[in-house]
Amino acid sequence: MSLESLLEGIAAREPRALGRAISLVERGGEAAEKLIGRLRGRTGRARLVGVTGPPGVGKSTLVEGLARLERAAGRTVAVLAVDPTSPFTGGALLGDRLRMQALYTDPGVFIRSMATRGALGGLAAAAHDAVDVLDAAGFDLVLVETVGVGQDEVDAARAVDTVVVVLAPGLGDDVQAAKAGLLEIADLFVVNKADLEGADRAVKDLRSMLSMAGEARGFAGDGAEGWDVPVLAVAASRGEGLEAVDAALGAHRRHLDSTGALAGRRRQRLALRVEGVLHARLLAEAGGRAGLEALVREAETEAGAEADPYRLADRVFRGLVERRREEVAG
Amino acid sequence: MSLESLLEGIAAREPRALGRAISLVERGGEAAEKLIGRLRGRTGRARLVGVTGPPGVGKSTLVEGLARLERAAGRTVAVLAVDPTSPFTGGALLGDRLRMQALYTDPGVFIRSMATRGALGGLAAAAHDAVDVLDAAGFDLVLVETVGVGQDEVDAARAVDTVVVVLAPGLGDDVQAAKAGLLEIADLFVVNKADLEGADRAVKDLRSMLSMAGEARGFAGDGAEGWDVPVLAVAASRGEGLEAVDAALGAHRRHLDSTGALAGRRRQRLALRVEGVLHARLLAEAGGRAGLEALVREAETEAGAEADPYRLADRVFRGLVERRREEVAG
Repeated sequence: MSLESLLEGIAAREPRALGRAISLVERGGEAAEKLIGRLRGRTGRARLVGVTGPPGVGKSTLVEGLARLERAAGRTVAVLAVDPTSPFTGGALLGDRLRMQALYTDPGVFIRSMATRGALGGLAAAAHDAVDVLDAAGFDLVLVETVGVGQDEVDAARAVDTVVVVLAPGLGDDVQAAKAGLLEIADLFVVNKADLEGADRAVKDLRSMLSMAGEARGFAGDGAEGWDVPVLAVAASRGEGLEAVDAALGAHRRHLDSTGALAGRRRQRLALRVEGVLHARLLAEAGGRAGLEALVREAETEAGAEADPYRLADRVFRGLVERRREEVAG
Repeated sequence: MSLESLLEGIAAREPRALGRAISLVERGGEAAEKLIGRLRGRTGRARLVGVTGPPGVGKSTLVEGLARLERAAGRTVAVLAVDPTSPFTGGALLGDRLRMQALYTDPGVFIRSMATRGALGGLAAAAHDAVDVLDAAGFDLVLVETVGVGQDEVDAARAVDTVVVVLAPGLGDDVQAAKAGLLEIADLFVVNKADLEGADRAVKDLRSMLSMAGEARGFAGDGAEGWDVPVLAVAASRGEGLEAVDAALGAHRRHLDSTGALAGRRRQRLALRVEGVLHARLLAEAGGRAGLEALVREAETEAGAEADPYRLADRVFRGLVERRREEVAG
């Protein structure tokens, strides 16, 4: 498929073209970069919502419920599952599969799972690129499901405008886990499995954590300080409380629009993507991981006993700049 | 405390000095780099073992059990908990706290938790540096507990020579989660909570996954292909099966030594650390995240419609090299 016909297929929300485009950005490299370049000017219209949280809290069930609600309101929905524990990615129990079948056969819904991008890119970069594809395809809502524990997943969650952090009672460690990174990215907390014991307590704990965190939350300068992060209890598998979540998502989007925070977030996101590309470029400059290992060994031989990672990095960095300089000069 | 007295305190395994040193590497920056530089030549003696896996599988209970066994054999143990869901990091239930009290008061044991390093370093870099501190302090065994889900945690887990991946039955998604990144880093699988239903099944599933993954496992070139990853069932809270885990850890270390794979792993680890420092240096060169955002905005204005992340990164990169070149020249 040529780039032109791929672009046509994306614009027509043609599932096969969308699948190919996402496979392309998963692989990364020049072809992916060309595609992303051509999507500029076509993106920025979709509502981008991330759903993240520890494994086992029912993120997929929530995503599925939200997708149904939005479809019932006549809007198109794309789901991108970058969570290896998500039923969308193939790890479904039979019940999950049956439940989701209706979504899979709805032409107004596109579901795609994503594995880690290997090579020099990384999961977050691939997720951001895939969101570009789905946004450019004209979906009204793009839901990105990530397992929110590591930094890479937190970065992937930042591919969106609104981040929903899902927790559940009875995991024991849930609120502790939330403290690490999830608190700072949450625009909305959902305590799922509200029918289980401990749900009220989890809601209360989160609310007091949020009020303690106070002004510390949010990334600096996003202008969203005026937003009080709601904590909502739902029972996603019974469909209870989903309307309130959907309404809160709408309210957050209006907040971002009215305060100008949306533009700020998108600027930060672009800078984050550029940072990821810079890292990949630097690594490519070194000849990839194997090349870097060789350069480190060289630097180690030269440096002798002073070969700590910091001084080795400085040697390697100087070497790379030097090399580039000679290329420019010669 | 001066650097010299800090180094003396580390060499004497003085808890206050160790605590300060780890706080220092958590903060990062020049002082941390100086310390790490001074530790070269003092590291490389400790056995470094990582314990990783999803939240709630009982990693800390396993770590605690292993620490007890090693202490009983007369060896000193340091525990570094970089897992926000670990009881060691403060997220303990009362039962956990009581159970661990004996460890905390044993002078042959040092326990320290670690939060994410903010700024330009990152969790993995701080974990690697902290392992250097504990290794240089002369502990026989350094146990690093991480929550093994994201890339950053996987990188942190690579701060060690032997990686134990812990799973438990009844999490439903455990084996699926394992597929994502955990399989490739595991030198040893432990299925904890072997007294629960589904443990046998989990062990069987892992074994068949491992035999399917076959030669795909391990990072390329580590020379460890000759190692058959064991899958052991334990009930850590009852102390059942811990001896077998301890024995497997010893066997893996002997395998690394006898095949020369240990040196290869340590080289890869050093290259990984250098890669992290390079990223931080590049970001510092751009003036940190805020500086990078400004550079991206500049580049965007210049590039106009062609302002996709890849082309913006190339512009920013060229600009940084240019600037560095002028500095060298002028």
